[in-house]
Amino acid sequence: MRDVAIIGVGMTKWGELWDKSLRTIFTETALLALDDAGVDRIDAMFVGCMSSGLFVGQEHLSSLLADALGRTPVPAARVESACASGGLALRQGFLEVASGQSDIVLVGGVEKMTDVTGCEATFALGTAADQEYEGYHGLTFPGLYAMMAVAHMHRYGTTREQLALVAVKNHDNGSRNPLAQFPFKVTVDAVVNSVLVADPLRILDCSPITDGAAAAILVPAEMARRMKKPAVRIAGSGQATDTIALSSRRDLTWLESTHVAAAKALAMAGRKIEDMDLFEVHDCFTIAEIMVTEALGLVDRGQGGRAVAEGLTARGGRFPVNPSGGLKAKGHPVGATGVAQAVEIVKQLRGEAGERQIKSAKRGLAQNMGGTGGSSVVHIFEAD
Amino acid sequence: MRDVAIIGVGMTKWGELWDKSLRTIFTETALLALDDAGVDRIDAMFVGCMSSGLFVGQEHLSSLLADALGRTPVPAARVESACASGGLALRQGFLEVASGQSDIVLVGGVEKMTDVTGCEATFALGTAADQEYEGYHGLTFPGLYAMMAVAHMHRYGTTREQLALVAVKNHDNGSRNPLAQFPFKVTVDAVVNSVLVADPLRILDCSPITDGAAAAILVPAEMARRMKKPAVRIAGSGQATDTIALSSRRDLTWLESTHVAAAKALAMAGRKIEDMDLFEVHDCFTIAEIMVTEALGLVDRGQGGRAVAEGLTARGGRFPVNPSGGLKAKGHPVGATGVAQAVEIVKQLRGEAGERQIKSAKRGLAQNMGGTGGSSVVHIFEAD
Repeated sequence: MRDVAIIGVGMTKWGELWDKSLRTIFTETALLALDDAGVDRIDAMFVGCMSSGLFVGQEHLSSLLADALGRTPVPAARVESACASGGLALRQGFLEVASGQSDIVLVGGVEKMTDVTGCEATFALGTAADQEYEGYHGLTFPGLYAMMAVAHMHRYGTTREQLALVAVKNHDNGSRNPLAQFPFKVTVDAVVNSVLVADPLRILDCSPITDGAAAAILVPAEMARRMKKPAVRIAGSGQATDTIALSSRRDLTWLESTHVAAAKALAMAGRKIEDMDLFEVHDCFTIAEIMVTEALGLVDRGQGGRAVAEGLTARGGRFPVNPSGGLKAKGHPVGATGVAQAVEIVKQLRGEAGERQIKSAKRGLAQNMGGTGGSSVVHIFEAD
Repeated sequence: MRDVAIIGVGMTKWGELWDKSLRTIFTETALLALDDAGVDRIDAMFVGCMSSGLFVGQEHLSSLLADALGRTPVPAARVESACASGGLALRQGFLEVASGQSDIVLVGGVEKMTDVTGCEATFALGTAADQEYEGYHGLTFPGLYAMMAVAHMHRYGTTREQLALVAVKNHDNGSRNPLAQFPFKVTVDAVVNSVLVADPLRILDCSPITDGAAAAILVPAEMARRMKKPAVRIAGSGQATDTIALSSRRDLTWLESTHVAAAKALAMAGRKIEDMDLFEVHDCFTIAEIMVTEALGLVDRGQGGRAVAEGLTARGGRFPVNPSGGLKAKGHPVGATGVAQAVEIVKQLRGEAGERQIKSAKRGLAQNMGGTGGSSVVHIFEAD
């Protein structure tokens, strides 16, 4: 297996992009990444997308997007693992280069979510849950994460205010990210008094519906050195599944797939979790970030709420989590999120993160999750 | 890259399986493959599925199917390239084993298409075309292939009867396949007088709407030898894209993605097309098989119609095409088709194809195609 490096990344402003189609959003982003990398050739491409069928009535993104980029007959694949689709695309691209199958690989993620009504979007997102055993009974994603939140509060004493502090932190970070969908700050008071979605989760506990894409160019690390590009090495990659339905879980408050995927990625990188300087994690709801910090081993079980309250995961804390603003403030175009996490870490490790730069960042971890943790993909990045 | 072999395959009877869910169909098939392989462990799984979102309101098949098989936390990925999704899953599984990333990999394909109305199925299948530039204007797949058929007839003199002879041949083969959806013979007269769908294509020119799955177990060839299993080696794998919209093609009668993918697969295997003893190809419509035989190089451009009329592609001909009955008679659960092609070739090379056995078959080629050829995946198989 060859060492693999990212030599270019691309992302445009996320939001409700009603004047752009899925293909336009993706193509603009991919061209930015190619430009950043300084290459005009790709050997293969992988695209993460969760549900372009339900959101825009378009499957076959492999052909659509290779064509839109003018890159046919290049081999192209769309991969899907719900909201972890972007992370999965990154992993498949990583393996494509590591195995020697291809030299220059474009990895992208995309989702166009605002062309449908809110009800239709809620249904489409619900297809990440068990449709027959959860969706059929009326459960939506806020409902599922609300049950996880209630269980966490009940067992560990996690408070309503601690949940809110995740949103406050991530919006503070996001206010420094010009590409974020919601680049503004919020207060605990605003969060706890915002519209109730699924008790105890309020609208400001939830990540938004977003149109957006992200892209990265992967090459063998040796080629990156030859090109004298500021490269970021993908030092580890881990992927795991868990039961899709919450009712089959042993413990509603624990994300086993994240725990397993992180252990694999860290083992591949030969690192410990405390070696990481920053983290981009899957805060689709405030409770999710709290549970992820526990599953990654940043804090003990049940201590995720206290950790955010004590500033451990703040931009200036010991373990900065979601300096980009996270899904919460940056937005959450589901198939793009996993790739955007990599984009942020690459920018941070290259020292190009502007007002949200984490000082002397050398290593970062990205954790991307499907459904309520039915799948997770974790990557470790190191400045080369 | 390590040599990779298939040591087990599974498929159940295809058809309108109203009493079974997508998860049941897939799981039954995967268990057959595991049983055939004689293994009780998998290290990773890849599932091809085109549009479970639109057909059954369920994405996140990675988690759903790993869970249903009781295999969490095994890494699982769903891949999609329209009707070439199964072939793409096989390719990703092949690369996973070849690269040394995993030893025992389950590759599956599945589609549950009959839980929706005919109109909804037509829409879902249409998402393999360019939704904005083809679907929006009312084009469906029979319409797109009808245009290709008209162009082929116009340029090369291909006849209505030659189209029908593809259906006659494949139903004759399919009548010997107990797992086929439509295991009966048809006549030229029946085809040319069947209901008109999109001129010149009639209902008996079209592959059906099908529920079904197929699965295979891949391991390093060296492990297969140690296990003393009757193994079939995957000697080559090629993948390519083409423009998604027909309007962007230089030539409506030529399948460039199939041509490129086949050349790559043959080069990897170190073989020529005439070294192959049998072919499973993507006859989603009768005209498709004719064009595929040309793109593969079995016959010269424009000679595909004459070839079927002269018996070249018959079971006892020089180049037997679709001994399984093809998509036409066996059925076409779109995400499963590419894996089912591998299942048939493995059975043929193991000498287990019963009444449809091709004598002394040692090498076979599978060609799986998305949309109107916007993507193609080709694999070469050899008895080990």
